[in-house]
Amino acid sequence: MKVTADIIAIGSELLTPHRTDTNSLWLTDRLNSIGIEVMQKTVVGDDELRLDHAIRDSLARSELIISTGGLGPTEDDITRKIFARVLGRQLKLDYEVLEGIRERFASRGYQMPPNNERQALVPAGASVLPNPNGTAPGLMIRHEGKLLVILPGPPREMRPMFDSQIMPELETASRGVRIARRVLKVTGLGESALDEIIAPIYREYSNPSTTILFTNSEIEVHLTASGESLARAESLVSELSDKLAEKAGAYLYSTTGESIEEVIGRGLAMKRYTLATAESCTGGLIAQRITEVPGASEYFLGSVVSYAESVKVGLLGVSKELLERRGAVSGEVAEAMARGVKQVTGATIGVSVTGVAGPGGGTVSIPVGTVYIGLSDDVITSNRRLTLFGDRQLIRWRASQAALDMIRRRYLA
Amino acid sequence: MKVTADIIAIGSELLTPHRTDTNSLWLTDRLNSIGIEVMQKTVVGDDELRLDHAIRDSLARSELIISTGGLGPTEDDITRKIFARVLGRQLKLDYEVLEGIRERFASRGYQMPPNNERQALVPAGASVLPNPNGTAPGLMIRHEGKLLVILPGPPREMRPMFDSQIMPELETASRGVRIARRVLKVTGLGESALDEIIAPIYREYSNPSTTILFTNSEIEVHLTASGESLARAESLVSELSDKLAEKAGAYLYSTTGESIEEVIGRGLAMKRYTLATAESCTGGLIAQRITEVPGASEYFLGSVVSYAESVKVGLLGVSKELLERRGAVSGEVAEAMARGVKQVTGATIGVSVTGVAGPGGGTVSIPVGTVYIGLSDDVITSNRRLTLFGDRQLIRWRASQAALDMIRRRYLA
Repeated sequence: MKVTADIIAIGSELLTPHRTDTNSLWLTDRLNSIGIEVMQKTVVGDDELRLDHAIRDSLARSELIISTGGLGPTEDDITRKIFARVLGRQLKLDYEVLEGIRERFASRGYQMPPNNERQALVPAGASVLPNPNGTAPGLMIRHEGKLLVILPGPPREMRPMFDSQIMPELETASRGVRIARRVLKVTGLGESALDEIIAPIYREYSNPSTTILFTNSEIEVHLTASGESLARAESLVSELSDKLAEKAGAYLYSTTGESIEEVIGRGLAMKRYTLATAESCTGGLIAQRITEVPGASEYFLGSVVSYAESVKVGLLGVSKELLERRGAVSGEVAEAMARGVKQVTGATIGVSVTGVAGPGGGTVSIPVGTVYIGLSDDVITSNRRLTLFGDRQLIRWRASQAALDMIRRRYLA
Repeated sequence: MKVTADIIAIGSELLTPHRTDTNSLWLTDRLNSIGIEVMQKTVVGDDELRLDHAIRDSLARSELIISTGGLGPTEDDITRKIFARVLGRQLKLDYEVLEGIRERFASRGYQMPPNNERQALVPAGASVLPNPNGTAPGLMIRHEGKLLVILPGPPREMRPMFDSQIMPELETASRGVRIARRVLKVTGLGESALDEIIAPIYREYSNPSTTILFTNSEIEVHLTASGESLARAESLVSELSDKLAEKAGAYLYSTTGESIEEVIGRGLAMKRYTLATAESCTGGLIAQRITEVPGASEYFLGSVVSYAESVKVGLLGVSKELLERRGAVSGEVAEAMARGVKQVTGATIGVSVTGVAGPGGGTVSIPVGTVYIGLSDDVITSNRRLTLFGDRQLIRWRASQAALDMIRRRYLA
């Protein structure tokens, strides 16, 4: 049977808008690496009754319960007391631990404040986990076949304690289960459209498990497999990944976690193509996304953000007559912009965007969300009309995504 | 008695090391603003049994239960089903909701995939919360004196639904205490430097309460006052806000929640100035930020992203000789870029950025983080050298922020 874990983060500050529990992400990563899955994460304040409930709930669910926080010297640090109570164990003052805390203070020339005595309280039968970076020791308790690990909240105290004192225990207990993951990235397709294509395949697998995430206009398909060895887990995840990749076809742009900007960058560099962009409604967003990748200067020459018509005419050489005849938001102008920026920069490929991002500026024939993307190389100049949905920000992002995806499909597939 | 809330974040991806639940922070902020405290936060996967338990536990604790996530069209989206089961209510297909989803697809020229029908399932007695930004409607259920609010996971869907449809309900329930808030926005100053200046003042007030948030290179000072009437709360918050604003001086750019892009846009439009940018290491980020504001075409003409030297020479008229003599990352080239983009676009003001965003490309004399900003108008062209810290993304963002702040201080103060 697979070992599962519950994580409880303790501290009222974690229930304010300004602080978040990051320990659980770190712990999840460590646990996953040895095949232990996290079943639930709970954040509770410094509240005796609620912590009591949270511990009982976790005990009912998981074999491994890890808590962080609430081991400080002040009265609202209640972790030791409540764990002892829930498990029906006496709290005893451990004189060896107390001496250790005293010495820690003494070594810095301080006397131990009386409050800190509390940190030497240990539930009967618990093992004490020394804390080289703080006064609060951790605790490990075996109870009715479950393992409870009680750690301090500060990451610089908690992390080394977990790695040196808990991981070796867990590796033995996890009986060699190993985890492998894969993330497939897809664009140009809706979430449910993709699901219809791939669900018949992934539904046949319970290992790997499949989760689909949708953001803006990208979809991530997360696959997680477990096996008795890493090679076995990798082979399970590869099998399903390959099948799903085949179904997703050209919509799939990465199976290695790369962003589309990185995929394009790598492709352009490999083919020794250079790129320039001419942007109207995206206002520089495409250039900004491309140059987020370190080393983009190898393939990206620059961009003309031609927000005003005078810039389209003056810098990109779009003809005034064309702008008047077809309007700035038209396929012809998109093509002229792409051709123009290719010419003035000397790039292999010119890509352009012109459209209406809203909220104002739409008309009956060219409503908000109308976007033309132009592509130009030495042989062909073409354009495509898109109708995008969302607010101004999302329309701009989707337009930039569509332009990047057109570059990928046309030149790098 | 005070109303308390439980928040449940649903989704297996939130139990992986790579994703964290940010909705609960946002929700906590909103709830706190009307005097509702969050009692517990729980993260559960797409697991029927565990979600069932989590809902039951929350019902035993709090008067208000808010869930986010798990409302998608795929099979692993189980939120509707499990809430209905825990509350002992039948799930019914709501034809009005279904029609809405169908129309949403139809308006884009698509047929609704059969999967999405699932999103029209509504527990008996639940109110449907329309979702203008997605297909998944939310649900609100009153049950044995408790209020259950079921929202989609994507923040851009969840947030407006909560603000427009849930906050008014909760404000009524929170019994007469009125809250006034003010956000002071400051840039160009470190968090602790600001705190040293303003702490002596805000420490004297317990109402309003003061929270300082630091992001990238902006600081927000959040003031929250409560009073028996809105007028009383407003007057309390204004008093402290005025005092703090005076202390923050020119570092303060907004007391109304406006972004720096909006402040600059309003200022430029009022003075009938136009702006153009020439960007090297920021790669279009300044143009992109400025054009995020609707109506930016009134004052923003465009940008030349001159990533390659040939573009600096060809489009901005920077002399080859200068580039060779001083190097691309120099005050002289920053000035030439600002002057050049002002000239080719005919803008009132040209602003430029050239620098080393890293991780590579730094030298002993021009290390990573060195950024020159140029400003040019009809009378003066000048430059300023900055040394910025952080990774590539942060250096780029801070460079764009410094450029925007220089425009604000020089031309709009």
